[in-house]
Amino acid sequence: LLFFPLNDCKHSLSSRTRILGMSTQARQSGFSSYNGGGMNGTSTMMDFLEEPLPGVGTYEDFNTIDWVREKSRDRDRHREITNRSKESTWALLHSVSDAFSGWLLMLLVGLLAGSLAGLIDISAHWMTDLKEGVCLAGFWFNHEHCCWKSNTTFTDRDKCPEWKSWSQLILGHGEGAFAYILNYFMYVIWALMFSLLAVLLVKGFAPYACGSGIPEIKTILSGFIIRGYLGKWTLVIKTITLVLAVSSGLSLGKEGPLVHVACCCGNILCHLFTKYRKNEAKRREVLSAAAAAGVSVAFGAPIGGVLFSLEEVSYYFPLKTLWRSFFAALVAAFTLRSINPFGNSRLVLFYVEFHMPWHLLELVPFILLGIFGGLWGAFFIRSNIAWCRRRKTTRLGKYPVLEVLVVTAITAILAFPNEYTRMSTSELISELFNDCGILDSSKLCEYVNDFNSTKGDDLPDRAAGPGVYTAMWQLALALIMKVFITIFTFGMKVPSGLFIPSMAVGAIAGRLLGVAVEQLAFYHHDWAIFSGWCSPGADCITPGLYAMVGAAACLGGVTRMTVSLVVIMFELTGGLEYIVPLMAAAMTSKWVADAIGREGIYDAHIRLNGYPFLEAKEEFSHKTRAMDVMRPRKSDPALTVITQDTMTVEDVEAIVSSTTYSGYPVVVSRASQRLVGFVLRRDLIISIENARKKQDGIVSTSVICFTDYCPPLPPSSPSVLKLRSILDLSPFTVTDETPMEIVVDIFRKLGLRQCLVTHNGKLLGIITKKDVLKHIAQMANQDPESILFN
Amino acid sequence: LLFFPLNDCKHSLSSRTRILGMSTQARQSGFSSYNGGGMNGTSTMMDFLEEPLPGVGTYEDFNTIDWVREKSRDRDRHREITNRSKESTWALLHSVSDAFSGWLLMLLVGLLAGSLAGLIDISAHWMTDLKEGVCLAGFWFNHEHCCWKSNTTFTDRDKCPEWKSWSQLILGHGEGAFAYILNYFMYVIWALMFSLLAVLLVKGFAPYACGSGIPEIKTILSGFIIRGYLGKWTLVIKTITLVLAVSSGLSLGKEGPLVHVACCCGNILCHLFTKYRKNEAKRREVLSAAAAAGVSVAFGAPIGGVLFSLEEVSYYFPLKTLWRSFFAALVAAFTLRSINPFGNSRLVLFYVEFHMPWHLLELVPFILLGIFGGLWGAFFIRSNIAWCRRRKTTRLGKYPVLEVLVVTAITAILAFPNEYTRMSTSELISELFNDCGILDSSKLCEYVNDFNSTKGDDLPDRAAGPGVYTAMWQLALALIMKVFITIFTFGMKVPSGLFIPSMAVGAIAGRLLGVAVEQLAFYHHDWAIFSGWCSPGADCITPGLYAMVGAAACLGGVTRMTVSLVVIMFELTGGLEYIVPLMAAAMTSKWVADAIGREGIYDAHIRLNGYPFLEAKEEFSHKTRAMDVMRPRKSDPALTVITQDTMTVEDVEAIVSSTTYSGYPVVVSRASQRLVGFVLRRDLIISIENARKKQDGIVSTSVICFTDYCPPLPPSSPSVLKLRSILDLSPFTVTDETPMEIVVDIFRKLGLRQCLVTHNGKLLGIITKKDVLKHIAQMANQDPESILFN
Repeated sequence: LLFFPLNDCKHSLSSRTRILGMSTQARQSGFSSYNGGGMNGTSTMMDFLEEPLPGVGTYEDFNTIDWVREKSRDRDRHREITNRSKESTWALLHSVSDAFSGWLLMLLVGLLAGSLAGLIDISAHWMTDLKEGVCLAGFWFNHEHCCWKSNTTFTDRDKCPEWKSWSQLILGHGEGAFAYILNYFMYVIWALMFSLLAVLLVKGFAPYACGSGIPEIKTILSGFIIRGYLGKWTLVIKTITLVLAVSSGLSLGKEGPLVHVACCCGNILCHLFTKYRKNEAKRREVLSAAAAAGVSVAFGAPIGGVLFSLEEVSYYFPLKTLWRSFFAALVAAFTLRSINPFGNSRLVLFYVEFHMPWHLLELVPFILLGIFGGLWGAFFIRSNIAWCRRRKTTRLGKYPVLEVLVVTAITAILAFPNEYTRMSTSELISELFNDCGILDSSKLCEYVNDFNSTKGDDLPDRAAGPGVYTAMWQLALALIMKVFITIFTFGMKVPSGLFIPSMAVGAIAGRLLGVAVEQLAFYHHDWAIFSGWCSPGADCITPGLYAMVGAAACLGGVTRMTVSLVVIMFELTGGLEYIVPLMAAAMTSKWVADAIGREGIYDAHIRLNGYPFLEAKEEFSHKTRAMDVMRPRKSDPALTVITQDTMTVEDVEAIVSSTTYSGYPVVVSRASQRLVGFVLRRDLIISIENARKKQDGIVSTSVICFTDYCPPLPPSSPSVLKLRSILDLSPFTVTDETPMEIVVDIFRKLGLRQCLVTHNGKLLGIITKKDVLKHIAQMANQDPESILFN
Repeated sequence: LLFFPLNDCKHSLSSRTRILGMSTQARQSGFSSYNGGGMNGTSTMMDFLEEPLPGVGTYEDFNTIDWVREKSRDRDRHREITNRSKESTWALLHSVSDAFSGWLLMLLVGLLAGSLAGLIDISAHWMTDLKEGVCLAGFWFNHEHCCWKSNTTFTDRDKCPEWKSWSQLILGHGEGAFAYILNYFMYVIWALMFSLLAVLLVKGFAPYACGSGIPEIKTILSGFIIRGYLGKWTLVIKTITLVLAVSSGLSLGKEGPLVHVACCCGNILCHLFTKYRKNEAKRREVLSAAAAAGVSVAFGAPIGGVLFSLEEVSYYFPLKTLWRSFFAALVAAFTLRSINPFGNSRLVLFYVEFHMPWHLLELVPFILLGIFGGLWGAFFIRSNIAWCRRRKTTRLGKYPVLEVLVVTAITAILAFPNEYTRMSTSELISELFNDCGILDSSKLCEYVNDFNSTKGDDLPDRAAGPGVYTAMWQLALALIMKVFITIFTFGMKVPSGLFIPSMAVGAIAGRLLGVAVEQLAFYHHDWAIFSGWCSPGADCITPGLYAMVGAAACLGGVTRMTVSLVVIMFELTGGLEYIVPLMAAAMTSKWVADAIGREGIYDAHIRLNGYPFLEAKEEFSHKTRAMDVMRPRKSDPALTVITQDTMTVEDVEAIVSSTTYSGYPVVVSRASQRLVGFVLRRDLIISIENARKKQDGIVSTSVICFTDYCPPLPPSSPSVLKLRSILDLSPFTVTDETPMEIVVDIFRKLGLRQCLVTHNGKLLGIITKKDVLKHIAQMANQDPESILFN
């Protein structure tokens, strides 16, 4: 099997494959690249304050950062500013502004993310309606806005003279088969135009803008560097193409990509502040908060957003970040609300309020929905991953534009005849969640009314009318269509989230079950299971709640979210008492899905794309030891080391050019193998180059000395090159007997890049993050070569 | 200054001081106890499954656990069960039940914590009313219950013939000065009786039941062992005395102690499951969840409870625990709601719903409240800590019963004349949070009504009537009283929480400011600041919201909670839009309080009591290195080590008896100082004792061998004692040059107990958690000797 290094939607990108090609080449040409794919090259990042040599302390693209070093550097910086602040008022002001820059940054991230979300909501709403018709009062009005002024009654909300469907505009009337076909045709054409534009923009300008982005953001937050993934071009193109993709009617949502958009905002705004621009660890704190802001505006759930960031995407999440994420999430939510994209001062289309309590016996159908959600989640993940793998490995992946057009055409053709698939998925979910009131005119609320039994606002359970039965059939067909089309949609070369399609599948299933239970209770309220709580004339079943529970179950099955899922749903309903059904469904769904396959969709995509992501949730449970994982293996040649004061510049250059390791241990002597420190390849190359150029008397035979006091040399020998400053004197070490579970724990919790292995005080080998990942993959019977980067 | 080892309310306890005395003695007699206060003694804990020797792997009281070892043991256990599960159906069932035991335990914790909270609420409500009178329809009814049936109107809710005040009962009438004095007298007498009973129960049966318990729980969760702190006696006595203390009218709340009660439930229920009974790390996961359940029932805020546990009390909080905590918190909340202690299907007395939005300009008074809260928090912490220190160091601490009686008498005497201090603090807060409706009869709602301007339910701003002005004066007096009396109350020998007193102070201040702003806006709506949003006849200011913001600010100033505070308050109001004022106040309050003193009240009490708690929030910012902290110091004798295969039983016993260290490094030889592993004192003693008794040929001159293959000995020598099984072959090491900030990070994140220090592969010294704590104290210019335990 061939694994392409990046997500399929990027693998044709030449500028990236150049670098990746190098990495692959290095591996294939027989070098063991266990110290990481250290590659020559100049850094494009800015140099650091008061660093003597530019480039020392920066990272290559597609490399893993060293959290310990980054955090140390930030502490040094903070210490310096604090110390200076005592000297002058100006420095004190600088120190205060530095302390508050984090908050200012959060404010800006929240404002920008909220505004973009509002923009996307409004544009997508308008363009979705454009597929069906146009407003004569102004083409920039969507259907609802267009009809706002001319209507006074609620029943005809959607019908007004200003809004013309395409057939009305072209033919002058909207009746008859021909008008229907014309509308159908226009619907498909618009959908194809939108999706074509989206895929061409993504392909041409920002290949990173495709997909949901959450797998990549998880990887970046865990310490990997993918330049440009959160850049300004990605932001601009993703925002535009997200609107296009959503409007084209494809079975995808804007919620996942909104997280990517928010993270782009966070990353770009980081450039305004030195503190965050120059420190990869600090920047990741901002990105965690931005992810929270993204979910906050996607679902109108600030607390759920913070918990999502904590539970799902973040890696290093100190409490300070929790508080700031919360702030960013709130600012974003309020910005969006002041934009008011839905005209109802709600943040999302599918906000809902239920009035009736649920009965304990209803937990049975709720748990059934949980089982359905779990099964669907596992099925979706398997099928989608299989399809994405096929796309990567066969010729299918070479025609992304055609693929998008074909899927769009099929979706549009199948969607138009069914009113529940013709409407946007958010609207569908909103309608499914809705609790039927007395005035509701939708088909789903066409019950047989018996006004004698109505008491006040409460509507008792009623017999379903013909509208409800029609709606049930249409919904069942919509369910089948959504289930299959989503598998092929997620992973195409357009921005695509799967929160909304997952929720739609669950909401349809839930509503179907809810109506079924409702009718059962209405016609058979004398059955033992209904007696006592569902007497005739009582309002005992709320089908909308079933839809919501189903949505939570399916979303949980796909993403394996837990707390954040329940809290997001809680924030949508606002009632504490509906948490229990949601929780029951989410728990069941996760258990069922986990029993079939351990990975959520994001983790599955991370593994499919071979990102170096060290999962923090799963415990490593095998009984291997550090000596089983470290390089060199028993049969390999000994570990490449540098001695502290006997090697010459020539010797070191020979080692550097003959190996590709990203760092070398420094020892007292080859015989003793007593460890002194660790030196990074990149720092070594830059320092030697610099010394040769600028320092007098440094020639190939100069001795390199890493000690404090260099040994006296005969006067004839060339001067000594002192490199103690680039030596990391505190490398992490473990003994060869250390269980791998502890090693994995250390790598996770401290964010290490490599760790040296000793036995009785002697250096034996090295374990890199990549070795750990490969070992975990091997233990899970997966192909260890699928982990490509380190 | 003398620091007593435990919280003042315990320091007279003889059984504890015996052990502590030993520790102090050991330190004073010149032994450097840097390896921890390892002491001889037999373990009272049960032995572990399949551990060859009972006692190996357990901990002494007042010791720190080794998180890495505990987690490894749990993984081993889990691995074994999983492996066995393939063998038989019975083993498979065992494996499944083991996996679900965590959830079952959470369910039980939630049920028990919820039930106890309901019991406490009902009893405290009844006993609080008992101070004022008794119900003739049944003495077990509280005032509200008593009058439920006889009343039909809301205005006279509190007056009914069945409820008799003490003067009515004794004199037959409730009018006149004498009746007032009689009621006053009865009020004080009941208060004294309740508090006397509480302090005697605490003193006699469960000294650990005093205080709020949160500082100790934080310490326990960080890995310290205090036997009996979460035991059944503590649970029983704390539950009873909590009711007594709250009913006595002292300025304290039940919310903090409820966390302690819930943790006791968690700890006791752990004994039902082997998995949790035998593993200190797993048990701490349960305690984290129990703390969440405690806050959940205390404030009716399940999500806030989980975030409180995460933010404030927990140390090791994996995502799995997050999900389970959420479950426990929900179960507890629903259990409490089904008990329905307040008769309104709400979880707390001070749940509130606001109707009017707030204006951006109102952020100015909200931020003022934040500043007030921060100042009050800092003032309270300083004064309370100074008073508690005085109690510890002077004769004051010797008369805890007298102290409680005096404070109760002063509180009761001052409280009775003022109706806002006479009522329970929860009721006061509830009244202050309340938004005045048209039918409200309380004095705080005595506005001048102008029914012409009333539109529907909305009440416009109105001129304050005489009742409001009287209430303002009474509230101002109540504020002064609460501010001072709380300082002396928190830390006495009764259960006492300070959430409620802090919130009361803030709520009073907020209501005062709110009414002031409201009247200002009413009389001066032509001022520029009010124009545009506060026209005559509009309802623009909600004084209840000010009270809530003030409560959040003061609570934030005292506890320095952030996210959890805002979420708890959000769950009390249920409206997303009130988060912004709450957040503004909480942020301001935290900044102001942090500027004056970095520590929250719990951290200050932890430091006061000298608990070995390694704060996870504060970054260590000094530029010291491991070599500055490790023992032995330069002037000290060399590190005590054991060689791997040359020492005899005699030699080792001599080392063990001449030192008090809790563990010894094992090296290859004294000359090379190359590290092999680490052996714990306790394990060593138990193993040697056991071998001497049961193994043939083990005498004082037997060689102890820690290696795999022991060197051949002459045939005449006694047999070799092999102890490799008790040797920890993977001790953590750092180099002497490692910055202390990294060392502190490692200790925090991995939960280490000790760490060995090497230089160029040679063992140099050791750093224990206690050394780290002492060093941090030293760097913060505190007395390092105040850290007593390790």
